[in-house]
Amino acid sequence: MIKLNPNVASVEGFQAAGVHAGLKKDGALDFALIASESDCATAGVFTRNMVKAAPVLLGMERLQRDAQRIRAVAINTISANACTGAEGLTNARAMADNVAARLGVAPEQVLVMSTGVIGTHLPMDKIRRGAELAGDALGNHWREAAAAMMTTDTRPKLASVTVESTQGTYTLAGVVKGAGMIAPNMATMLSVIVTDAKLAQPDVQRALNAATRHSYNRIVVDGDTSTNDTVFLLSNGASGVDIADDHGLSQIQRALDMLAQHLAQAVVRDGEGVTKFVTLNITNAESEAAAERIGQTIGASVLTKSAFYGSDANWGRIVAAAGRANAPFDPDRSSLWVESGESVSESEPGLLIFRSGTPTDYLEDDAAAIMAAPSISFTLDCGMGDGRAIIWTCDISHDYISINGDYRS
Amino acid sequence: MIKLNPNVASVEGFQAAGVHAGLKKDGALDFALIASESDCATAGVFTRNMVKAAPVLLGMERLQRDAQRIRAVAINTISANACTGAEGLTNARAMADNVAARLGVAPEQVLVMSTGVIGTHLPMDKIRRGAELAGDALGNHWREAAAAMMTTDTRPKLASVTVESTQGTYTLAGVVKGAGMIAPNMATMLSVIVTDAKLAQPDVQRALNAATRHSYNRIVVDGDTSTNDTVFLLSNGASGVDIADDHGLSQIQRALDMLAQHLAQAVVRDGEGVTKFVTLNITNAESEAAAERIGQTIGASVLTKSAFYGSDANWGRIVAAAGRANAPFDPDRSSLWVESGESVSESEPGLLIFRSGTPTDYLEDDAAAIMAAPSISFTLDCGMGDGRAIIWTCDISHDYISINGDYRS
Repeated sequence: MIKLNPNVASVEGFQAAGVHAGLKKDGALDFALIASESDCATAGVFTRNMVKAAPVLLGMERLQRDAQRIRAVAINTISANACTGAEGLTNARAMADNVAARLGVAPEQVLVMSTGVIGTHLPMDKIRRGAELAGDALGNHWREAAAAMMTTDTRPKLASVTVESTQGTYTLAGVVKGAGMIAPNMATMLSVIVTDAKLAQPDVQRALNAATRHSYNRIVVDGDTSTNDTVFLLSNGASGVDIADDHGLSQIQRALDMLAQHLAQAVVRDGEGVTKFVTLNITNAESEAAAERIGQTIGASVLTKSAFYGSDANWGRIVAAAGRANAPFDPDRSSLWVESGESVSESEPGLLIFRSGTPTDYLEDDAAAIMAAPSISFTLDCGMGDGRAIIWTCDISHDYISINGDYRS
Repeated sequence: MIKLNPNVASVEGFQAAGVHAGLKKDGALDFALIASESDCATAGVFTRNMVKAAPVLLGMERLQRDAQRIRAVAINTISANACTGAEGLTNARAMADNVAARLGVAPEQVLVMSTGVIGTHLPMDKIRRGAELAGDALGNHWREAAAAMMTTDTRPKLASVTVESTQGTYTLAGVVKGAGMIAPNMATMLSVIVTDAKLAQPDVQRALNAATRHSYNRIVVDGDTSTNDTVFLLSNGASGVDIADDHGLSQIQRALDMLAQHLAQAVVRDGEGVTKFVTLNITNAESEAAAERIGQTIGASVLTKSAFYGSDANWGRIVAAAGRANAPFDPDRSSLWVESGESVSESEPGLLIFRSGTPTDYLEDDAAAIMAAPSISFTLDCGMGDGRAIIWTCDISHDYISINGDYRS
């Protein structure tokens, strides 16, 4: 049995903390630490941006060298430590060194993440203080850890999944930050997921890749891809449940997918200035990749997002966005439905507004009533093949512009 | 000598009109007609969106069949006649038929353009009235024609270029509409350019292709690509200047480039809710195509555009956008300058804020003073090759969201 909990109670052998290290001016939590009492088989998925922040480069290097013995992940806000050259890499290493010294582990066993403004150097005195304070504060403080990762996020985002397997019970728990800059390719955010199940490192990486594809890579807030995007998955085996057979792997994959999708959707719900949660259900595209591209292009279109914000059933913009997605698409074979809510009905997914290339005679008032809901789902049947993908996205509001117009001030 | 005029006086053998046909509710001009007294060698450049509006399909078909005898272009607003299936195509043909009957030419000699909401059928009674009224009103009414193309545009956009060649004087004149949905690939808008110089049809197409690449394809308002984008170039030869040799072709290309760039920039300046005109000068990219992609990705990033709006020199977002442009890019070889104004200085293009992968020690106040100007230019040296491109773009403001949130209401 797999059960989702919108919180984290505890995970065997892991501890978490979130402290105020002086990075944020208002005294808010700004430095997070997640640590394991024993070595973790660890996987990472990183931004595809050509511009990779120093902590991303360091994380890639460390996991490539030895992904079997990771003990901790530390996260700071305010400075993204991106576009900071050699000094940035030195600072990322020093941040890991400080955490390693406090925890009594080797520097190579610590991973770091940074989020905030690009092009500013880490304030190392505050980073050192953060490492000390967070080391002191370690406990079951998952909510504080999630809060300490926040930038323009309005609330901490965390969840856990408990799995009752034939070998016993184990837990997966995750924290995530990310509000703007959430893009099609590897959603922009930082996420750390841990499990007390035991997995071989290649299985950790395979499971994380698959879960990321169907969660973080399927959300769109503003279409930008950050320099810092990273998801880590750490497995310490402290539950005593050893997962090696197909059945066990398939079960933990389902649990991880559920957790990652919940966290990814939480990022969209907390997107900058978001007023609508939009589900784009792309069906019968030429391939799964085509369905993804079509959904992501619709989700990233500011014209489409503006119409969502205005509760305007301007479906023409959706079809037009599908047409420029660099994927096979033929409007004359396509149909579009809209319904309120988040779940997508399989048989008749709401109001049919566009069928085989032309608008139906739906009533504008019916569409407007659906669009007025806080959650809207569109189903676009491309009539070309069996590729499908669900993309979660949101509107763009006046508040998004305000938040991003003066983010640094 | 080539001289640009921000208006159109007259072009030999061409007439224009803009009338109110009852399409717009407020009595504003809504139907435009541009007609030639003699046959025109004509070229077209069309949207690359897979979803092509009926007038686009009709225009492609007619120019493919016979591009030597075009006599007129008619344009309506309110309905884009896109996603309208077979009925849409029938209506586009009927619109051309009405204009042809009024002018006494063959239906195949008339091209049509539509702009407005996607998925609504042309109100054919009003279209017929527009054809009648516009036929009656033909004269040197270029400003009225430009005004009658407007949707969310705030002002008519037109210009002309006079060329004194060794064979005599000839004129190029153009009108354009487009405010939102102006995208990297073939800027979303409708534009008609006419010339009384005589050119062979293949030269008309070559000249239009080249001019479009360096004008309409180099502007970005919101990154969306419409279903209706079209640019036509009509040459009737009424000036008696026959252009066939290399010198003449090179001169008219310069004149056409100047006109098309002026019109394209006018579209950006009149972009929905625009408060800043931004020039992105991408230099030393791996290729011209790479420079275009990098500039277009920066120009389409809502994060970057929000920072422009907030007069925030958040250059990290510019570098991050360059990094996700699907073009070779290495921040450690890149440098970025910012200056106020529209012209780009070659030797020292303003304030150097990022050099070889790290921020310089520029003063934030100096950058803020530059960013406060209504026009800002960035020069991004990619340090990779000799590819270059200039992209013109704008900010995204609260007004953009308001305009597009309730466009249809």
